[in-house]
Amino acid sequence: MTTQEIAKKLVDLCRKGNFDSAHNELYSKDAKSIETMATPAFPKETTGLDAIKKKGQMWESMVEKTHQMTVSDPLIAGDAFAVSMDMDVTMKDRGRTHMKEICVYNVKNGKIVSEEFFS
Amino acid sequence: MTTQEIAKKLVDLCRKGNFDSAHNELYSKDAKSIETMATPAFPKETTGLDAIKKKGQMWESMVEKTHQMTVSDPLIAGDAFAVSMDMDVTMKDRGRTHMKEICVYNVKNGKIVSEEFFS
Repeated sequence: MTTQEIAKKLVDLCRKGNFDSAHNELYSKDAKSIETMATPAFPKETTGLDAIKKKGQMWESMVEKTHQMTVSDPLIAGDAFAVSMDMDVTMKDRGRTHMKEICVYNVKNGKIVSEEFFS
Repeated sequence: MTTQEIAKKLVDLCRKGNFDSAHNELYSKDAKSIETMATPAFPKETTGLDAIKKKGQMWESMVEKTHQMTVSDPLIAGDAFAVSMDMDVTMKDRGRTHMKEICVYNVKNGKIVSEEFFS
C-alpha cells in the first residue's frame, strides 16, 4: 500500500475504534510508538508490534467509557502523515477527560514503522 | 495568542515565504528545531531562536529558486499543531528537488517552543 492508502485505512479503522486491526494490518513488526512524555502507565518509547498491542490493551483497560472519538482526515507528505485525534473518555482512575493529540506516522516498505504523539 | 491563532498566523507567513517574521513574532527565545535526521548542512537538533534564524538564512543561501511552496491548513490539538509543506525548489548544489514534510509545532505561553519535521 502507498502512504496515502495506509493513512486512509488507519483513519477508517481508528474512526471505528478498531485499533487491533490497524495494528495487525498496517504496522511493521519492529514499529516504534513514542509518547509526548513518559507517564506511570506508559514509557516514552515502546518498540515492537507485540509491545504496542499490549500498550493498546492497557489503554483499553484504563478506559471506562468512550463518549466520542474524532479523527481528522490525514495530512500526507512523502512517507509521513499526520492526523489529529480528539477523545472524550471517562477514565477509571480520573473520571471524564477530554484528550487531544497530533499523531504522526512514518511509513517504510508499505508498513507503519513509527507513531509519535504530540499534545 | 492561542494555539489556533499562532497556527493560522504561521501558515499565513509561511505561505508568503516570510519566515523571518514567523520566527520573530511567533517563536520563543529558547525554541528547538528538530530535523528528521542530521545532514551535512543541519544538525538533528538546533536550540535557541538565534540559531534557528541562522538555520533559516543557511537554507535560503542553499536555494537558487523557489518554484512553488504549498502549506496546508493546520491540524490543531491542544498545544500542538501540524501542517504539511510541499516545496518545489532548485537547490544550488543538486538541482531541482521536490520536498514534502509534515511539520509539528508545540506552543507554550503563547509562543512556539518546538518545531519538528517528518518526511
